Amino acid sequence: MSLTPEQNAEIDELRSNPSETLRVVSEGMEKHLYHAIPVLDHGFVRVIDYMGDDAAICQAARVSYGKGTKSVQNDEGLIRYLMRHWHSTPFEMCEIKLHVKLPVFVARQWIRHRTANVNEYSARYSILDREFYIPAPENIAAQSAVNNQGRGGALEGEEAARVLEILKADSARSYDNYQAMISQDGQEGLARELARMNLPANIYTQWYWKVDLHNLLHFLRLRADAHAQYEIRVYADAICNVVADWVPAAYRAFEDYRMGAVTMSAQMVDCLRRMIKGETVDQDTSGMSAREWREFKEMIDS
Amino acid sequence: MSLTPEQNAEIDELRSNPSETLRVVSEGMEKHLYHAIPVLDHGFVRVIDYMGDDAAICQAARVSYGKGTKSVQNDEGLIRYLMRHWHSTPFEMCEIKLHVKLPVFVARQWIRHRTANVNEYSARYSILDREFYIPAPENIAAQSAVNNQGRGGALEGEEAARVLEILKADSARSYDNYQAMISQDGQEGLARELARMNLPANIYTQWYWKVDLHNLLHFLRLRADAHAQYEIRVYADAICNVVADWVPAAYRAFEDYRMGAVTMSAQMVDCLRRMIKGETVDQDTSGMSAREWREFKEMIDS
Amino acid sequence: MSLTPEQNAEIDELRSNPSETLRVVSEGMEKHLYHAIPVLDHGFVRVIDYMGDDAAICQAARVSYGKGTKSVQNDEGLIRYLMRHWHSTPFEMCEIKLHVKLPVFVARQWIRHRTANVNEYSARYSILDREFYIPAPENIAAQSAVNNQGRGGALEGEEAARVLEILKADSARSYDNYQAMISQDGQEGLARELARMNLPANIYTQWYWKVDLHNLLHFLRLRADAHAQYEIRVYADAICNVVADWVPAAYRAFEDYRMGAVTMSAQMVDCLRRMIKGETVDQDTSGMSAREWREFKEMIDS
Amino acid sequence: MSLTPEQNAEIDELRSNPSETLRVVSEGMEKHLYHAIPVLDHGFVRVIDYMGDDAAICQAARVSYGKGTKSVQNDEGLIRYLMRHWHSTPFEMCEIKLHVKLPVFVARQWIRHRTANVNEYSARYSILDREFYIPAPENIAAQSAVNNQGRGGALEGEEAARVLEILKADSARSYDNYQAMISQDGQEGLARELARMNLPANIYTQWYWKVDLHNLLHFLRLRADAHAQYEIRVYADAICNVVADWVPAAYRAFEDYRMGAVTMSAQMVDCLRRMIKGETVDQDTSGMSAREWREFKEMIDS
Repeated sequence: MSLTPEQNAEIDELRSNPSETLRVVSEGMEKHLYHAIPVLDHGFVRVIDYMGDDAAICQAARVSYGKGTKSVQNDEGLIRYLMRHWHSTPFEMCEIKLHVKLPVFVARQWIRHRTANVNEYSARYSILDREFYIPAPENIAAQSAVNNQGRGGALEGEEAARVLEILKADSARSYDNYQAMISQDGQEGLARELARMNLPANIYTQWYWKVDLHNLLHFLRLRADAHAQYEIRVYADAICNVVADWVPAAYRAFEDYRMGAVTMSAQMVDCLRRMIKGETVDQDTSGMSAREWREFKEMIDS
Repeated sequence: MSLTPEQNAEIDELRSNPSETLRVVSEGMEKHLYHAIPVLDHGFVRVIDYMGDDAAICQAARVSYGKGTKSVQNDEGLIRYLMRHWHSTPFEMCEIKLHVKLPVFVARQWIRHRTANVNEYSARYSILDREFYIPAPENIAAQSAVNNQGRGGALEGEEAARVLEILKADSARSYDNYQAMISQDGQEGLARELARMNLPANIYTQWYWKVDLHNLLHFLRLRADAHAQYEIRVYADAICNVVADWVPAAYRAFEDYRMGAVTMSAQMVDCLRRMIKGETVDQDTSGMSAREWREFKEMIDS
Repeated sequence: MSLTPEQNAEIDELRSNPSETLRVVSEGMEKHLYHAIPVLDHGFVRVIDYMGDDAAICQAARVSYGKGTKSVQNDEGLIRYLMRHWHSTPFEMCEIKLHVKLPVFVARQWIRHRTANVNEYSARYSILDREFYIPAPENIAAQSAVNNQGRGGALEGEEAARVLEILKADSARSYDNYQAMISQDGQEGLARELARMNLPANIYTQWYWKVDLHNLLHFLRLRADAHAQYEIRVYADAICNVVADWVPAAYRAFEDYRMGAVTMSAQMVDCLRRMIKGETVDQDTSGMSAREWREFKEMIDS
Repeated sequence: MSLTPEQNAEIDELRSNPSETLRVVSEGMEKHLYHAIPVLDHGFVRVIDYMGDDAAICQAARVSYGKGTKSVQNDEGLIRYLMRHWHSTPFEMCEIKLHVKLPVFVARQWIRHRTANVNEYSARYSILDREFYIPAPENIAAQSAVNNQGRGGALEGEEAARVLEILKADSARSYDNYQAMISQDGQEGLARELARMNLPANIYTQWYWKVDLHNLLHFLRLRADAHAQYEIRVYADAICNVVADWVPAAYRAFEDYRMGAVTMSAQMVDCLRRMIKGETVDQDTSGMSAREWREFKEMIDS
């Protein structure tokens, strides 16, 4: 990603004008404001605004008149309790607004999270930039042999080179033809809302995305997960770092009770109890399918 | 409404500690922060936090790198265009968090607006205060004779006195009995989650309510309307004043294109065109039902 | 609960008129249609309509042209996979519409589940019936000594009798006064929208409630849970029985992966792995708080 | 659009098996079930399931025990009243499930309507078909000269031919390369989740889309509007025809109070009243901007 000098100047100007506010301020978040965190080859995540901090979660949970916080330790205990017992509403009391630049095929996954507010750059109204996601060599991955919905190791040698060549050439040609179609130089020019259909899904788009902390954490649980597609996971990872600075106690609870947690089925819990008592359990005696048994083994093996 | 000295001290403390922020600040809103705006006899609305201002609406609509605003005049024109043409997403980019104290029967109407975040004071967990809404004499209104769902003029004389007497006596007795049931003085004490069922719908509850500007304006359009029940309308009116200070341009557009606007049916538009051409139209020749015709007349008669 | 002869006649009439449809039909659900399942002393749950069945979940997950189902066994495997891996959208493809009669304090908890459609009986427009929830003796429970938000054992003897007496007397008096205030016999009559504020939270209301299967299961997970308040849990239990007949495979998966499942934190999983290897772990060496440790022990002890 | 013989056989099989149900049946809708209504060159809309009819709207509005309908005339009056006065919840009590095949750039607009359930064909998991939207000659439109976000007349002659040539050639080449990259013939094969990024936005995707009637009508108001992009409007038009058969009274009310209605601002209403009294009003004396005045003139001129 490289911002233009004009864009950098705009960011610098925004950051050079602190104002006084009576609102809650998260010091960890102020340092992120407006800076573009690079993701993939041309993408980024930028924090545009935020509301609330760890204390605001407790304040809402307690429906307080004032700050609503007690000792920091006491607050962290409450936040962990709320997270562990699936209380969602106090976490909804924090809000974040991001500016994200991302490939269209990533945007199409992302938008499926419906409980958020979105303003996307309009390719009906405006002309898209010539910026395409071309994977780094180590991310040009083979189809997974075991998982229809995943990828295996990196392609190598000639095959990788061929893929790279195709992606670059098709991106360039599609964009050249997009420009040729909308050009009003010696012709009328095709409507932008039609011309955009020629652009492939690795072109970059951008949007403002605003979401509350509860729904953001749900997004991160799914998209920062090892099974998520790499190209959306890197955005989720970048946002995780931001959240850790914004609401550190909530983020720690999220790591312990969501990201690092496992959910065991009734059958799994039953096997577990038998195993702790010293019984040897295998798939045959577990009551689980082969697939569930494999998932169970992954949970309990270090 | 009267806050306790402790509550006032908490508010004063919150207001006495401005912090620096790089975020957008709405000066009009800063002056409201934390103060309790009295509503009804014991209720209030307090702004706890906010995100964004008029410029933030334009910034999102333009998916800008920087402030995204042009001249103030240019911005107001864009905001009016967006409002007039029912663009909802840019208005969703502003957010407000309120602390509201309100009678339960008002809360029951309010909660029907689902696109908001709510943390209500829990009567399972805590003991409710002895505070009940008792209408002022001019608000003790008769059932409307023409509208099943509305009220007519104020009751007078003995009837009004009787109503007042009933509301006061039943509130007091219910609360006394609530206390008697949960008391652990010489007895086990009924569970709070059960005892609360004895309390009438004019008891006050409170909650944190967080909503984006688009959904807030939708709420205000319905609840600040002349047909809304008085007891919720006064809350909507109080919030309207806050919004006018927070996002003045958006609020003016809201007044012009929502609150002061009318929607005319296909039939009404047809009649209108005929009338402007000089034709005399009455209900018989209008194609409307008597009720629609009456509504139409109200729209066009000054 | 007792329906009037007129209401029973309406139900009988609805059930006596089968129609032909090309839509998917769930035989298990047809037998429930319109019948009122009694809950609490005057409440009920009635299935008014439904869309989809187990096969419809698979059909949507596969985005099929036709039925989209393979063998029943194959379908159940897919449903279990989807449930286990938190795929929510295929379950959203089934929908149910219920008519529920319930005390107001239960309705106030219920409505916090926002992703549903609701039409409630309007006490602004209509007059409420004289029906109040009076707990059976075994449900007049003491405040829990260990859990601020729960109840302990049943109250006994005089204390229980006193509670019962209060609830009955206050309900009766409130309703008498409600009637007296709205009466137009020799007086104008107070507006219904005001008079309702005198009614306590154990009065019954009713609503049509429509929700998709994914959100219904989320509701049931929270409200059929042992920690939910008894008075809402009995509604959840009644609905569980209906769902088990409607989408049996999805319901079995729900029991295994939600109701009977446990979520273990990162710390818990770590302890578990150590225990399975034979290490003795106690709270001190677990890295958990006392409360978390207690919750962990409950999970693994049979 | 052409379905394969297998797909037609699946549809025929589904339609040849009527079942008995006690649920409400909409005769107008039964005839549509499963049939694919062709839209654009390869797209379609198919009704997979539905819940409710006109009477179900009234039944919910009245929170009835039985059918809840009175005379058909009475029901239509209620439906019109509900529509006119923006009552949304009774319309949410009807639900529809569609199977839609549509170009990706149309899908990207469509998905912005968040209050719906969606299952899209997964290009991570499966291989997309070689089907691209190529506009008919009359729809290869020029960029609008007056509206940044719209199209003007059809391109002609050589320019149109060139556009057509580009769209066809780029679609074919992109798909050939997509196939070449995922091929496992003599190579590992690129992961599908990556290869899809080479495909342009005119490729067809498909999804199951389920929505309630209130939100569907909101979608139709925006997308069947003359200002909507042609390629989504034709889908909205096809769905309008289905809705007219499903809930005829609600659809008539929708036409009168939404599609054929206009919303006039406070300033417009003021001008109107002056004009009806005989005053001559022009933009200068109207208090409107030039743009608003033009919109006003369009409303009142036949």
